Amino acid sequence: MQVSGGDLQRLRQLNSLSSIRALRDARAPLTLTELSAQTGLSRASVGDVVTDLHQRGWIAEVEPAPGTMGRPAKRYRFRADAGHVLGIDIGVHKVLAVVTDLARRIVASGRVAVDRHTPRAERLEAVWRAVDAALVAAGLTAGDVWGVTAGSTGVVNREGLVTRVEDLPDWPGVDLAGHLGQRLPCPITIENDSKLAALAEQRLGVAEGVQDLVYLHVGRRPGAALILNGHLHHGFSGATGEVGLMEITGWRTMADLLKDSPAAEGAPPEEAARLVFGAARAGDREAMAAVDAYARQLALGTAAMVLTLDPELVILGGGFSRSADILLPALQRALEPHCLRVPSIRPSALGEECVALGGACLALDHVDEHFFSPEGTLAGPAAPQRVG
Amino acid sequence: MQVSGGDLQRLRQLNSLSSIRALRDARAPLTLTELSAQTGLSRASVGDVVTDLHQRGWIAEVEPAPGTMGRPAKRYRFRADAGHVLGIDIGVHKVLAVVTDLARRIVASGRVAVDRHTPRAERLEAVWRAVDAALVAAGLTAGDVWGVTAGSTGVVNREGLVTRVEDLPDWPGVDLAGHLGQRLPCPITIENDSKLAALAEQRLGVAEGVQDLVYLHVGRRPGAALILNGHLHHGFSGATGEVGLMEITGWRTMADLLKDSPAAEGAPPEEAARLVFGAARAGDREAMAAVDAYARQLALGTAAMVLTLDPELVILGGGFSRSADILLPALQRALEPHCLRVPSIRPSALGEECVALGGACLALDHVDEHFFSPEGTLAGPAAPQRVG
Repeated sequence: MQVSGGDLQRLRQLNSLSSIRALRDARAPLTLTELSAQTGLSRASVGDVVTDLHQRGWIAEVEPAPGTMGRPAKRYRFRADAGHVLGIDIGVHKVLAVVTDLARRIVASGRVAVDRHTPRAERLEAVWRAVDAALVAAGLTAGDVWGVTAGSTGVVNREGLVTRVEDLPDWPGVDLAGHLGQRLPCPITIENDSKLAALAEQRLGVAEGVQDLVYLHVGRRPGAALILNGHLHHGFSGATGEVGLMEITGWRTMADLLKDSPAAEGAPPEEAARLVFGAARAGDREAMAAVDAYARQLALGTAAMVLTLDPELVILGGGFSRSADILLPALQRALEPHCLRVPSIRPSALGEECVALGGACLALDHVDEHFFSPEGTLAGPAAPQRVG
Repeated sequence: MQVSGGDLQRLRQLNSLSSIRALRDARAPLTLTELSAQTGLSRASVGDVVTDLHQRGWIAEVEPAPGTMGRPAKRYRFRADAGHVLGIDIGVHKVLAVVTDLARRIVASGRVAVDRHTPRAERLEAVWRAVDAALVAAGLTAGDVWGVTAGSTGVVNREGLVTRVEDLPDWPGVDLAGHLGQRLPCPITIENDSKLAALAEQRLGVAEGVQDLVYLHVGRRPGAALILNGHLHHGFSGATGEVGLMEITGWRTMADLLKDSPAAEGAPPEEAARLVFGAARAGDREAMAAVDAYARQLALGTAAMVLTLDPELVILGGGFSRSADILLPALQRALEPHCLRVPSIRPSALGEECVALGGACLALDHVDEHFFSPEGTLAGPAAPQRVG
C-alpha cells in the first residue's frame, strides 16, 4: 500500500487525538507503555506523539514519587491548566461568573447582586464586573479565555437571542453575544439558564451518565429543560420544556397555592413558599394540604413530559428544591395516577452555581470540538492561547 | 514519524470507509480522480482502495456510455445490490414484509391479512408466510438477509419485548426476536410500529432532513412517536409518545366523538370515521362540528408534546390521515390557542408500507454500523453474505 504525505499527516493527527483523550480521561498519569496499551498504538508511535504533545504544551511530565527506587518510567498527565473557560449566569437576582480549567474545576468566581428592577444597561454592566472579578481572582486576562457560555433567564433562540422573558420587561432582544464579544475574543454561546443547570447536573451532579432526563426548575416561575439521548434538547426555536404554558397544567398560577396558605400570611412573596414548606415539615395540616395541592399541579405538566419522553430521571431544581424533603415525596405521590412508570426523582445537587457551571461545561464542549475531534486543529495551547 | 503495521491497517480501513461512503452517497458513478477529490485521499491511495473494494464485491465498474470517444476514465459505483435487509410490519390487520437493497429501494414484498381475533401462534405463522413470499419474490433465501427489523403494535421495551398492547390481549410478552431468529441468521431488532413509521417519513417521506418531529398516529387507537436530534427517541423503557394516556387529553375516548356523530349512524366502527370526514367534506354542519371537537381533543395531547419539544414538524399519520384535507386544518386551528408557535403539520407520505419501510431503514442503520463505521469490519459482501 502506498502512503502519501497527506495520509501520514492525517494518521499523526488521529494518533495525537487518541493519546490526548486517553491522558485527559485517565485517573492518574500514564507511562508510555500504559498509553500504548490504552490507545492500541505502537510503542514507537506513542513515543513520537508524546514528544510532540509535550512540546506543544498539552501534556506535562510528572515527577516520580519520592523514594521510588531505580530509574522509574516517565509518566505523563494532561495539562488541565493549559486553558480556561468562562461560565456566566445572568439571572433576575444575581450575575455569577465562574472560571474553570479544562477538567471542569472551578478555579475562581465573581458575583454581583441585581434585582428585577435593574435596567438592561446596568445588568449588562454587572456582567462585566462579575467577569472581571472572576478573571482577577483566577489571575487571567480576557485574552486567556478559550470559550464563554452565558445563561440567561427566558427563551433563548438558536441564534442566541433572548426572545421571551416573563420577569424582565426590557430584556427580550438583548444581544448578549455581541456584548460579551466586545471584550472577550473567543467563541461565545448564549443559552437558557435552566438548560445549563440541567447540563451541569448531567455532567457533574445527580445525573452523571443519565441519557434522558427532565430538569424541573421549581420556584416562583416554574420551567423545565430536557436532556435527551445525552444531549441538551434545543428544539426548532429554543422554546423547549414549555408545557407549563398550557392552561390545563395550572403551572402559571400554582405558586399562589403556597402564597395563599395561612402559613404564609403577611410574608413577602419571596418568603411565602419557604414558610409553607417549613410549616408542612412541622406537621401543620393546612400547609401540608397546600403543598399537596401544589404538587398535584406540578405533576400535571411533569406527567405530560414523562409520558411523552419516558425519561430515566426527573431532577427537582430551582429555589423550591431546597425543600425537596417535603416537595419530592408529594410530587412522587401526585405522579403515580398519571404515569405508566414514575421515574426516579432526585433533588438538584449543585446549588447556586449550577447555571454558571453548566455554561462552563458547554464552553468546554466547544473547546473539545475545536481541538479534540477528528475535525479539530489541535494546535498548541502555548502559542495561540485561544480557540477560533 | 514511525509507522507500524497496526497503524497502516487502521489507515487502510479509514481510507476504505471514506471511499465507500463517497461512492454510496454519490448521485452518479465516480472516476478515481473524482473520488480522490471527494475523499481528500491521494490518487495513489484511492487506486489501492478501489482495487480492494472491487475484489471484495462492494463496488462495480460501470461501462462507459456507448459512443464515448477515446479511452474514457473508468467509473465506479457502490453496489446497492450487494446486500439486502427485511422490514416487517406486524399489525392488527396485516403482516407486511418488504425486502430492500442497501440503497433502501423496495425490491419485493409479501403481505398476509390477519385481524384482531387472530391468535398469537397464527399471527406468528403469518409473519413467516409474508417473509417467505417477500424472499421468493426477491429471489433470495433467508441466508441472504443481512438484517431484519420488525415493527409491532404496542409498547416495545429496549430489550425488544412487547410489554403493553391494548388491542391484542395475547400479544404482550411475545418474543419476536427469538421467533424470527429461528430461521433468520442475522441481527434482528424489534421496534414499536409508530416509531418505524416516523423513521421512514424522516428518511424517505415528508420529513427528509428534519431533525425534530412528532409523528401522530391518528386512528381508532391514537399514538405518537418522536424523532429528536435526528434520531428515534426510545426513552428509558421504550414507552415514549404516550401523553394520550393522561385523562385530561381525552385521547382514549376521542374517536367516539366521530363514531357518535349522526353521519356515522348504523355504520360499523371501522367505517365511522371515514363517513364523518366525508360528510364534513361535503359541508354537513354536524359532521364538521364532530371533526372540530375531535381535533380539539387531539390538539390537547399534541400541544403538550409541541410545547415540551418545540419540533420543526408534526406528521399526521395513521388511518385518519387519509382525511388530512379535513382533519389537518382543524388540528391547526385547535393548536393555535395553546402553542407559542404552531409547527408545520404535514400528512404522512408513505402510506401503508411506512412501518415495514421504517424497519428496513433501521436494519440498514445496523448494517451501516457493522460495516461502514470506524468500528466496523468491512469484510467483503461476497464471501460471508451476512452481518454478525
